[in-house]
Amino acid sequence: MLGDDIMNMQAMLCVDIMNIQAMLDVYIMSMQTMLDVDNMSMQTMVGVNIMSMLTMLGVDIMSMLAVLDVHIMSMQTMLDVDNMTMQTMLGVDNMSMLTMLGVDIMSMLKLQRKWLARWLVMLMIGIGTALVATIIEICIEYITEYKFLALKKLFDFCRTYSCLAVPLLAWVAFNALVVAAGSALVTYVAPQAAGSGIPQIKCYLNGVKIPGLLSIKTLAAKMFGVILSVGGGLACGKEGPMIHSGSIVAAGISQGRSKLCNKDFKVFEYFRSDNERRDFVSGGAAAGVSAAFGAPIGGVLFTLEEGASFWNQSLTWRIVFASMLATFAVNLLLSAVHGHPSDLSNPGLISFGRFPDISYQAIELPIFLLMGVVGGFSGAFFNAINYRLTVFRHKYICPKRWLMVLEAMLVAAISALLGFVMIFFVHDCRDNLDDEHYETRIQVFCPDGQYNAMGDIFFKSPEASLVSMLHEPADAFQATTLITLVIPYFLLACWTYGLSVSSGVFIPSLLIGAVWGRLIGLGFLQIVPSMGNNIGKYALIGAACQLGGTVRMTISLTVILVECTGDIKFGLPIMLCLMLAKWVGDFFNKGLYDMHIYMMGIPILPWDAPEMSYTVFASEIMNSPSTCLHQVETAKRIVEVLREHPHQGYPVIEPCEGSQEIMGDKAYGRCKGLILNSQLGVLLKHKVFDQVSPKPVLDISHFRDVHTSYTMINSSGKRKNDIQLTDEEMKYTIDLTPYMNPAPYQVTQHASLPRIFRLFRGLGLRHLLVVNEKHEVAGMITRKDLAKYRETQQGGSVRMRELSIQEY
Amino acid sequence: MLGDDIMNMQAMLCVDIMNIQAMLDVYIMSMQTMLDVDNMSMQTMVGVNIMSMLTMLGVDIMSMLAVLDVHIMSMQTMLDVDNMTMQTMLGVDNMSMLTMLGVDIMSMLKLQRKWLARWLVMLMIGIGTALVATIIEICIEYITEYKFLALKKLFDFCRTYSCLAVPLLAWVAFNALVVAAGSALVTYVAPQAAGSGIPQIKCYLNGVKIPGLLSIKTLAAKMFGVILSVGGGLACGKEGPMIHSGSIVAAGISQGRSKLCNKDFKVFEYFRSDNERRDFVSGGAAAGVSAAFGAPIGGVLFTLEEGASFWNQSLTWRIVFASMLATFAVNLLLSAVHGHPSDLSNPGLISFGRFPDISYQAIELPIFLLMGVVGGFSGAFFNAINYRLTVFRHKYICPKRWLMVLEAMLVAAISALLGFVMIFFVHDCRDNLDDEHYETRIQVFCPDGQYNAMGDIFFKSPEASLVSMLHEPADAFQATTLITLVIPYFLLACWTYGLSVSSGVFIPSLLIGAVWGRLIGLGFLQIVPSMGNNIGKYALIGAACQLGGTVRMTISLTVILVECTGDIKFGLPIMLCLMLAKWVGDFFNKGLYDMHIYMMGIPILPWDAPEMSYTVFASEIMNSPSTCLHQVETAKRIVEVLREHPHQGYPVIEPCEGSQEIMGDKAYGRCKGLILNSQLGVLLKHKVFDQVSPKPVLDISHFRDVHTSYTMINSSGKRKNDIQLTDEEMKYTIDLTPYMNPAPYQVTQHASLPRIFRLFRGLGLRHLLVVNEKHEVAGMITRKDLAKYRETQQGGSVRMRELSIQEY
Repeated sequence: MLGDDIMNMQAMLCVDIMNIQAMLDVYIMSMQTMLDVDNMSMQTMVGVNIMSMLTMLGVDIMSMLAVLDVHIMSMQTMLDVDNMTMQTMLGVDNMSMLTMLGVDIMSMLKLQRKWLARWLVMLMIGIGTALVATIIEICIEYITEYKFLALKKLFDFCRTYSCLAVPLLAWVAFNALVVAAGSALVTYVAPQAAGSGIPQIKCYLNGVKIPGLLSIKTLAAKMFGVILSVGGGLACGKEGPMIHSGSIVAAGISQGRSKLCNKDFKVFEYFRSDNERRDFVSGGAAAGVSAAFGAPIGGVLFTLEEGASFWNQSLTWRIVFASMLATFAVNLLLSAVHGHPSDLSNPGLISFGRFPDISYQAIELPIFLLMGVVGGFSGAFFNAINYRLTVFRHKYICPKRWLMVLEAMLVAAISALLGFVMIFFVHDCRDNLDDEHYETRIQVFCPDGQYNAMGDIFFKSPEASLVSMLHEPADAFQATTLITLVIPYFLLACWTYGLSVSSGVFIPSLLIGAVWGRLIGLGFLQIVPSMGNNIGKYALIGAACQLGGTVRMTISLTVILVECTGDIKFGLPIMLCLMLAKWVGDFFNKGLYDMHIYMMGIPILPWDAPEMSYTVFASEIMNSPSTCLHQVETAKRIVEVLREHPHQGYPVIEPCEGSQEIMGDKAYGRCKGLILNSQLGVLLKHKVFDQVSPKPVLDISHFRDVHTSYTMINSSGKRKNDIQLTDEEMKYTIDLTPYMNPAPYQVTQHASLPRIFRLFRGLGLRHLLVVNEKHEVAGMITRKDLAKYRETQQGGSVRMRELSIQEY
Repeated sequence: MLGDDIMNMQAMLCVDIMNIQAMLDVYIMSMQTMLDVDNMSMQTMVGVNIMSMLTMLGVDIMSMLAVLDVHIMSMQTMLDVDNMTMQTMLGVDNMSMLTMLGVDIMSMLKLQRKWLARWLVMLMIGIGTALVATIIEICIEYITEYKFLALKKLFDFCRTYSCLAVPLLAWVAFNALVVAAGSALVTYVAPQAAGSGIPQIKCYLNGVKIPGLLSIKTLAAKMFGVILSVGGGLACGKEGPMIHSGSIVAAGISQGRSKLCNKDFKVFEYFRSDNERRDFVSGGAAAGVSAAFGAPIGGVLFTLEEGASFWNQSLTWRIVFASMLATFAVNLLLSAVHGHPSDLSNPGLISFGRFPDISYQAIELPIFLLMGVVGGFSGAFFNAINYRLTVFRHKYICPKRWLMVLEAMLVAAISALLGFVMIFFVHDCRDNLDDEHYETRIQVFCPDGQYNAMGDIFFKSPEASLVSMLHEPADAFQATTLITLVIPYFLLACWTYGLSVSSGVFIPSLLIGAVWGRLIGLGFLQIVPSMGNNIGKYALIGAACQLGGTVRMTISLTVILVECTGDIKFGLPIMLCLMLAKWVGDFFNKGLYDMHIYMMGIPILPWDAPEMSYTVFASEIMNSPSTCLHQVETAKRIVEVLREHPHQGYPVIEPCEGSQEIMGDKAYGRCKGLILNSQLGVLLKHKVFDQVSPKPVLDISHFRDVHTSYTMINSSGKRKNDIQLTDEEMKYTIDLTPYMNPAPYQVTQHASLPRIFRLFRGLGLRHLLVVNEKHEVAGMITRKDLAKYRETQQGGSVRMRELSIQEY
C-alpha cells in the first residue's frame, strides 16, 4: 500500500510530515487521499495539534496557509473542526477570525436577515396584490350594479318605441364618458398602463428594461383605468391588468422606495439589484395571476413559462408562497366584504364555478379536438385583424393623444349601441322563474313574466355572462341569439385590444369561445340527443380553445383553466385542445402578446436558438468596434466614453506590446476584466481619483445606492444627482482594477450561436465578451445582437432571419 | 435628412451604391438603417436585382459574401426574399443552394421529423408508463385479495386460543417467502432496482451517470420486486418505484435499443445523446409520478424540482403531455379492468378520495401549523434512525448478499407478527353495519356482528388503510388503537426503507402521518366538540406533514397532495405545513433522499453555490495537472492518455513558443479546443490517421453510434467492439482539429465559485476549461470538484466544507 509506504518512509527518513509533503510536492489533500484516512486520524498521525505544528514550522497561520496554498475554509475542513474550536486553537479573537475567514460578521448576520426578509417581502407582495385585486373588484361591482340598475329602470319605464332613445342615449353617454376618463388617465398620465401589461411584463422578466413600467404612477393608472374601462362596458376584462399590478406592487415593496414620491424608506436596500428585483417581480406576477383567477399553481407556472430561464428551487418556493397567499387573501377579503367572512367562497376575481356532475366520455375527445382546431383558426383570425388594426393605429392615431382618447370613446359608444341593437332585434324571451337573478333581467319587448335573454347577457359583467354560458342549461339561449352575439362581440373585442385603456383580453376571449362552444354543443345535441343536458363542458372547452388560439400560452393556461374549474377532471381535454389550438394558430401567425412585443421591436430572446443557426459564429454576431478602457484611465476619457459610446459595459484591457493605437486594430489588447457603465458613474461621482488623498474607498453599498448613468454627467450640475467635474479633475486618473469584474463570462470567436444563446438564456446575461485566441478583446455581444436572429416558421417552411431591432 | 444626402451624393458622384458603401466603409445593414427604408425598397433603389449587381461587380456570390462579410442567411434577410426566390435569382440548383446555406437537405427534413418524433416518443412514454402502473396495480390487487381472503378464512375458522397459531404461521410464512423472492430478485439480478429509485433518478437528472440504472433488467426487477414486497405485506408503497419505472420506460423507448437484449431497433437514433435522453427520462419520471398519484402537474413539477436546472418551454410542454396521458391511460386501463370502462374513476394508483363537504376555517390554521412542526420533528427522527440503520447495513449486511435477503425476510416476518399481536391485544370492536367492506373485516375475538378495527387496518393494502384514515368518521377508531398502531408501524417503516427490496416510502409516511393527524384531531374534538365530525382534514394534514418532514420535497409535493385530493381547497394549509415541516426538519438533518445520495457519495450539485464561497476561485478548485493533447497527436500518445488519465475530456493545445516540455509547466500552451474521451475512441476505432489514404471522414452519426471508451482499447481484440492497433499504426498521427470543439465554455483563473457554479447549473456542464490571462490552459474543473464544496447548515450555524467524493 502506498499509504504504508509513506509512513515507513517517514519513519526511515526521520522527518516530520510537513517535510515529506514538501519532498513529495503534493498538497495535503492528496496526501490524505493517498493515506486513505479521515481528517482527525490525519491530525493524530501528525501527532501534534495544528498550533504546535505551526510553532515547529516557525510560521504564523497566514503564511502557513500561503505555503499550503489553500483557503482557510479548506484548512478547516481538513481539520474537521467547527469555527469555534478553530478559533480556540488559533488563539485569536472573533474579529481576526472573521477577517481570516474572509467574511465580516455583518455579512454573516445579513445572510440570515436576508433570508427572512425575502420571505417577509413575498408575504407583503401576496397581501398587497390581493388588496389591489379586491379594490378593483369592489369598485367594478359597485359601478356595474349602479349602472345596470339605473338603465333597467329606464328600460322598464320606456317600453314604447318612441321612448327607447332615452335609455339608449343614457347608456351610450355613460359608457363613452367613463371610458374617456379611463383612457385620458392612461394616455396622459401613464402610457405604460395601456393594455393588459402582459407583453411588457414578459419582456421585463426576459431581461429587457422598459422605463416607467413598474412605477407607482403606472399602478394607479392601471387600477383606476381598468375600473373605468370595465365599468364603461368595453369588451375587456380585469384579469390581465392584475398581473401587471401585482408586478408593480412587488417592485415597489421589494425596493422600499419610490421615484415618483421621491421617498426612500431605507428598507430592503440589499434587494436593490436587477436580479433580486426581477425575482420579486416574478413573485408579484404570479400573485397577480393567482389573485385574478384563484389559480396559485397556474400563477407560478405563468411566471416560469413567461419569465424564468433558470429554475431555482428556493425562489420558486417563495413564489408559490406569495401566490398561495394572494389567493387566500383575496378569498378572505372578498368574503368579508360580501358579509360571510368564514365561508371563503371567492378564490379569485373570476371563478368558472363548479362542474360537479359533469364528466366527459372518451368518445367526446374527437369533438373536443375539433374544437381545438376551430379555436386555433379563430384565434389566428383575431390576431390577424388585431395586427392590421395596430399597424393602422401606430401610423395614424398614436401620434395624436386626443385621437387615442377619442377612439376609446368611440369604441365604448359603439359597444353600448351594439348591445342595444342586439337586445332590440333578438326576440329570445324566457320565463322569469327564479327571483335570484331578478335585477339583471330586463323585459324590453317580452311579454310580462318573461325577460330578454340577450339583455341578460349584456346587463352583466363579462365574467358573469361567461359563468352563465358555462352553467345555464342547454335551452337557456337559442342558437340564433348565440350567433348574433358572437360575431359582433368578436370584432368588438378585437378592436378593443390595443386601445389606450387599461384592459385585458382573457375574459372577452373566454366569452367568445364559450359562446361558440355552446353553439357546437347545441349542434351536437341535435345529432345525438342522448348525450344529456350537460352543455357546459362544450362552453368550457370552447372558451379554452379560443383563448389558447389567441394568446398561445400552454402549460400555465392549462393549469389556470383547470384551477378555475376547481377540478382536474378536464385537465387532459383542455391540454390537448390548447396544444392543437397553438399548433394551428402558429401556422398562421404569432400569439397576441408575442405579436405586440414584435411590433414594439423589443429585443426579447426566444426559448431556443434558431435551429439552423449553428453555422453562425461569435465573430459574425459581435459588435466589433467595441470601446475599451485601460486599467488606469483618465477621468476625461471615461467621461468621453460614457457620453459617446453609451453601452452597458466596457472591457478593461492591457495593451499588448507593440500596439500603441488600440482603436485602429481589430483586437484591442489583452482582456483584464469588465466594468459596467453604472460603476463608472459611481466612481466619477465619488471622485475615486488616484491623485486625491485620502483616496475614497467604495464598498458594495455605494454601487447599490444610485443608478448613475452618463446622462448625469454634465458641467452645469443643475440636478441633485449630477456629477460635476472641474477641468483639473478631468486630468486625474482612476484605477479601475479594484472595481472591475476580473472574470467576466466570455467566449472565443469560434463559439456558435446556439452555444452563445444558451449562455445568455441560462445565465440571464446582458452582454458577453468575445476574446480571440490570444485572449485579446475581439468584441462584445449584447442581448440585442442575439435577439436579431429569429426563426420564422410560417406555413410549414422554416427560415432564419435577422430582424432590425429598434432602440427602446 | 441623411438618407436624402446619401442619394444625392450618389447621383453627384455617379457611382453605384456598392462603391458608396465601400467609400463609407459601412455595412449594408447600417446603410439601410441610415436610409430608413425597408429591404425591398432598398433593392428597388439599387435599381438592379442582385444577379446584375453581381455581374456589375464581376464577382461570384461567394466572394460577394466574403466582401460583405456576412453570412448567406443575413444576405437573404437583407433582400427579404425566401429561399426559392433567392435560388432563382442566383440561378443555382438545389444542392448548391443548400451547400451555400450551410445545411444539407437531410438535416432540414430531419428537423421536421425530429419534432414529430419527440411528441411520438412522449406519447409512447405516457402510455408505456401507464401500462407498467396498471400491471403492478392489478398484480398487487390480486395477491392481496387472495392472501387476505385465505387468511380471513383461517381466522374465522380458528377462533379458539389454541388454534390461532395456524393463521399466524400461515401469515408469517407467506409474507416471508414472498418478500424473500422479491428481495432475491433485486439482490441477485438487478441491485439498482433496490429502494424507491428516487434518489438515483434525482442524481441522473442532475447529470450523474449511474451504470445499469435505466436497463430493462432493472425495470423487470423493479416491477416484480415491488409486486412481491407490497404483496408480502412490508410497510412500503408502490408509488416511489413507479417513478423509477417510468424513467426506464422513457429511456428504453427513446433510445430504441437495449443492451441486455443486444437489440438495436434503429429507430430514434438522433435521440442518442446524453441531453436528449435526459429530457425523455424527465418525461418518464413525470409520467411515473402522474401514473402513481393521478397528479399530472405534480409530476411535471417533481421533474423540475428534482431534475431540471434549465427551464425549457417546449420540453416542459412535452413533459406535461406525457404526464397527462399517463394519468388518462391509467384511468382508462384500470377502469376497463374493473369493468366500467367509461367511468374513468381511477386517476392513479392512489387517490385520497374526495372531501366534498369538508372545509377549514381560518381559526384552524394555527393547529395545522403546529402539525407542521410535529411533522418536521417526526420526519427528522425517522431520517436519523434510518441513517444509523443504513450505516450499520452498509458495514455488516451489504457485504454478504444472502444476509440482505435474510434481513428482508426477517422484516416481513416481523411485520406479520406485529400485525397479529396488535390485532390480538387491541379490543376495538365495531358494529359491522354495511356489507360493502365485508371481505376485509375479521371478527377475531369480537362478538358476532362486530369486527376488529385493528384487523381492518391490517387486512388491507396500506393505500386502502390510508383512505380509511382520511374518510372514516371520528368514532371509527379509538385513540388507543391509533397510538398502538403508530409507534410500531413507524419503526417498521423506518426499518423497511433501505432493505434490498423494491419499495417506496410515500405510502407508509402518509399512513403514519394520517394516524397521528387523526389522533390530534381526536384531541382537538375533545376540547372543542362543536367543530363537528370532519376529522379527515386532520388526517390529511398530518399525512402531508409526516411525508414533508421525511422527504423535504416542497412545491411538487404540495401539488401532488392537492391533486390527490382533487381539490385546491387545502392548497394553502398543505403548503404552509410542508414549509414548516421542511424548515424544522432541515434544522436536524437532510431529507431522506438527499441523505441516501450523500451516503452513496454521488457528486450531485446543490441548487445554489454555498453562500460564503465567493472567496474561492477557479485556481483553487481546478485540477491543475491536467492532461493535454496537441492538435496533431500520435495514436500511441492518445492510447496512453486514454489508459492512464481517464477523464471525460481533454484540452487540445498549441504549445507556446519557447516551451518544449509541456507537462512540466503549470500552464500547458494556448488553448485551441476540447476533445471528448468518447470522440478519441471513435477516431481510433475508425483509424482516422493522417498517413492512411483515403483518410476516412466521420460525421455526427459515427460519434452517436457507439459508446467507445478507453477500456475497449487492447491488443488482444477479443470483444466485438474492441479497437485493435498494430505497432505501425501506433506511430501514425491523428489531426484532432476537425473533430474537437473549437469553442468550449471556459473561465479565467479569477472566476469565483458562485460564478462557476451558475455555469455548471445553468448549462448542465460536466467539465469546464480554466485558462490563464494568456489564454493558455491552466486546468479543468469537473462536476466532482464543484460538488465537494458544500454548505452544511445544522442547528442554525452555517458552515462551508469540502467533502471527499468517492468515484462512482
